[in-house]
Amino acid sequence: MTDPTSSPAGAFVPSRRQLLTAIGKAGGAAALYHAMTAMGHAEPSQFRGPPKLSGAKKGASVLVLGAGLAGMLAAYELMKAGYKVRLLEYQNRPGGRNWTVRGGDVIQEIGGAVQKVGFSPGNYLNPGPWRIPYHHEAVLHYCQEFGVALEPFVQINHNGYVHSSKAFGGKPVRYGAVGADFKGHVAELLAKAVNKGALDDSVTKEDKDKLLEAMKGWGILDKDMKYVKSLRTSSSRGYDRPPGGGVNGAPIPSEPYGLTDVLDPRMWMTNAFYFNNVMQTSMFQPVGGMDMIGKGFAKQLPGMITYNAKVTKIAQSDSGVTISYEDLSKGGAVKTASADYCVCTIPLTILSQIEVQASPEMIAAIKGVPYHSSCKVGLEMKRRFWEEDEKIYGGHSFTNQSISQLSYPSWGFFKKGPAVLLGAYAGGAAAYAFGGMTPEQRVEEALKQGSVFHPESYRKEFMNGTAVAWSRLPWIAACATSWNDEARKAHYQNLVKIDGRLVLAGEHASYIGAWMEASLLSSLDAIQRLHAMAQAA
Amino acid sequence: MTDPTSSPAGAFVPSRRQLLTAIGKAGGAAALYHAMTAMGHAEPSQFRGPPKLSGAKKGASVLVLGAGLAGMLAAYELMKAGYKVRLLEYQNRPGGRNWTVRGGDVIQEIGGAVQKVGFSPGNYLNPGPWRIPYHHEAVLHYCQEFGVALEPFVQINHNGYVHSSKAFGGKPVRYGAVGADFKGHVAELLAKAVNKGALDDSVTKEDKDKLLEAMKGWGILDKDMKYVKSLRTSSSRGYDRPPGGGVNGAPIPSEPYGLTDVLDPRMWMTNAFYFNNVMQTSMFQPVGGMDMIGKGFAKQLPGMITYNAKVTKIAQSDSGVTISYEDLSKGGAVKTASADYCVCTIPLTILSQIEVQASPEMIAAIKGVPYHSSCKVGLEMKRRFWEEDEKIYGGHSFTNQSISQLSYPSWGFFKKGPAVLLGAYAGGAAAYAFGGMTPEQRVEEALKQGSVFHPESYRKEFMNGTAVAWSRLPWIAACATSWNDEARKAHYQNLVKIDGRLVLAGEHASYIGAWMEASLLSSLDAIQRLHAMAQAA
Repeated sequence: MTDPTSSPAGAFVPSRRQLLTAIGKAGGAAALYHAMTAMGHAEPSQFRGPPKLSGAKKGASVLVLGAGLAGMLAAYELMKAGYKVRLLEYQNRPGGRNWTVRGGDVIQEIGGAVQKVGFSPGNYLNPGPWRIPYHHEAVLHYCQEFGVALEPFVQINHNGYVHSSKAFGGKPVRYGAVGADFKGHVAELLAKAVNKGALDDSVTKEDKDKLLEAMKGWGILDKDMKYVKSLRTSSSRGYDRPPGGGVNGAPIPSEPYGLTDVLDPRMWMTNAFYFNNVMQTSMFQPVGGMDMIGKGFAKQLPGMITYNAKVTKIAQSDSGVTISYEDLSKGGAVKTASADYCVCTIPLTILSQIEVQASPEMIAAIKGVPYHSSCKVGLEMKRRFWEEDEKIYGGHSFTNQSISQLSYPSWGFFKKGPAVLLGAYAGGAAAYAFGGMTPEQRVEEALKQGSVFHPESYRKEFMNGTAVAWSRLPWIAACATSWNDEARKAHYQNLVKIDGRLVLAGEHASYIGAWMEASLLSSLDAIQRLHAMAQAA
Repeated sequence: MTDPTSSPAGAFVPSRRQLLTAIGKAGGAAALYHAMTAMGHAEPSQFRGPPKLSGAKKGASVLVLGAGLAGMLAAYELMKAGYKVRLLEYQNRPGGRNWTVRGGDVIQEIGGAVQKVGFSPGNYLNPGPWRIPYHHEAVLHYCQEFGVALEPFVQINHNGYVHSSKAFGGKPVRYGAVGADFKGHVAELLAKAVNKGALDDSVTKEDKDKLLEAMKGWGILDKDMKYVKSLRTSSSRGYDRPPGGGVNGAPIPSEPYGLTDVLDPRMWMTNAFYFNNVMQTSMFQPVGGMDMIGKGFAKQLPGMITYNAKVTKIAQSDSGVTISYEDLSKGGAVKTASADYCVCTIPLTILSQIEVQASPEMIAAIKGVPYHSSCKVGLEMKRRFWEEDEKIYGGHSFTNQSISQLSYPSWGFFKKGPAVLLGAYAGGAAAYAFGGMTPEQRVEEALKQGSVFHPESYRKEFMNGTAVAWSRLPWIAACATSWNDEARKAHYQNLVKIDGRLVLAGEHASYIGAWMEASLLSSLDAIQRLHAMAQAA
């Protein structure tokens, strides 16, 4: 660690960001990286502000394939730089996976299932991205640039439940109580080991004293270094009777949970989850639904997006690119569009089925990247019983069942009337299991599993459900990439390099994965390289 | 633990709350308590909904002293029950400690100091209560009843700083990073001790395996059970270069902080703080300032509050109470008011200076309860540099300096223009140290100490400050009670019991202390007892 950058009061010093930007400009990425680490902390994001792309050659043109966030960002910034830009989009709406479903929307699946969303006016489900961490700076930047209103996403709720079929007799417990007990038990055990001298070879005498003090304070241990029932431990884990006012104001302490149950993986996984860099607070969501972001981008591109355009071929030569597509709004009539360059943001699950004129390495990369699925189920309930009866305002309840979690809406707190909660967020094999069910079966499964948290209310208050299984969506047939080390080594640089006049962008061309920030950072990198190449041509 | 209350789908079962309410009505508080604990979890609040007080005797009257939350709640519910109610309030506004200061407000202190608040329109500081935990059900209930709009209070922000002069060379670190490292080090040490057999006499073989699995997963240990620099640990603590998109998308891991610094008390205290029952998420604040609650109550009491009324004597006889007060709006003219009963919510720091006709035990209690002070400093800055430059949206930064913490506004995220942050929240001895300074010195001290977090911006962006030292406020001369075990034993029941025709209410008559919920629960208990006595008379 080096000294903090500090200055006498009032003296001008460049801000950290100004300094880093200057270093980056002068010395490039390597110098920037070294300067950042020397300053003691790296930046939490690779976003360095919108790109400086001015000065496109007169008449230079770009075709952008896909009007998801990556495609629309590319189009927006290239347009501002002076390029002639046009977008082709398979669907009849902008945003791609940046998607919100509302009452009346129709969801069509591979296999023929059709869902008409039954939510009440104002209610919605974000089937894809649904929360924005504070360090997804590109997303936050463009939300500000386009006036997309954001509100806090309640990520951590100590009053949410944690459920494991293998602990507490299968009964859910409150995260605040079990989380307090986990640290209490861990602290007691570590203090005991330290006092036995078991770590004398690992920690200095000074650290040993600090460690014991830390365990006693953090774990709320008593004078004998035990984690026991007391008003002190109850002041974290909760009381049998909480402090009140007047004659019966005195609190009654509660009994901590036992070690065996507290050690259930679903318990500590919840605690670890909240420290995950992309899950850390604070977080945001757009007011009214995540698709406000896609709509915000689309508004910047008036008349530039051709919807219902199914790309069938990407051809290129020394002089330009030619895209063939079926105009689905005209019965599938085949059309072509040409430009100097192409930014293709079509997901690889689809792109791998399209004829692409590119190097064998890029073709291999397009075919070689693994994807995963996920399934989200939105359940509309007659009222916010989780708020009214159980004092859960936003946040999540976790379970070791395949629905993995419930999530309670982070908006409209205390509102009367119907509300939509996230009743399943299935990943891994469970996502495909859900995908193999009919939409009705998925909703029923979500109701069945979710009832463990809210047995008194769940079935009684249920109105309707919508289940989005990403593997079943014809425009992507998956959720997002699942890069592994082998695929990275074999394919990543081949996927992202400019191939002739073609460059790919999207979350698949990133190390971030299934987040909107991935699409934006990938796109920014792609268009900056494309612009540099075009300028050099 | 008993079995969860569950039912076949669709069958009618009373809700938990309905059941508890029924038990409470039939068997009283003791039966209710036993039923609750038998059900496995107690309720998080003693609030059981608004009181049922109907049927006041015709013409029965109550004088309420103090138009803070306790007083106004008493007046509101007694009025609804049919009592003739009048309130006397020393200040020229309702709310008491439920207080918000805005530009143009004038704050007068004992000792003569006068501050005129300089905040820009829309900006504010809540000198007293400023956040509402999810389990403060009485506060949340009356907010709903009176239409007080609430918004989330961002309590946990992993990107906030933690600072100790004794760790990291005095440089602040991000809570998300140091929090991840704390659990990593603790997990590594405990796993090591377990693997040495140091806890074989304390945990079963089965628990030992679960414990090792927990430490490995929770602490993100490697295959050798070490907490080391890696992409895995960086995925929680943050990266030297975070994952990005395109050619340079690959992340670069960061080096964890060392054990010695991580064990600094200010680090684990921050983690433990967030598990404190009253600090747990989710939390709320009223839109526009905390005094919206007091204003909401006052609106229900049209023409019933006499402001600028300085109570000088509380007299009572077998037939009623007579209150003497100086009408400060009429040059201090002495007046009297009479009623059948009196609910007195005047803080004991003031009440102990007033002549009160009550039993020697109550008088001793009024004089015997210790109070503490606190000092909050609001700093208006030209712009939200904490958001724009450092990606801190709400939440806190903690320090071992006497300001104890900064808190960033939980509203108006991303807004341009001036904003107010909480630049000091001093308690204990520090509260009196701040109280001993002039307001200007307090602001300067807050700026000096707070600069450790934001050295580049703090002085540069500063516009004006307001410093509220509670020990200096003439209407209370303290912040709130600091009950200890001795005082509880000697005085609590004597303080809360009905004494003739007089009953006391307020946070001082509770086990909760300095929270609005304390005032409300105390008041509800007091008026229910008073009503029962009045009915029996």
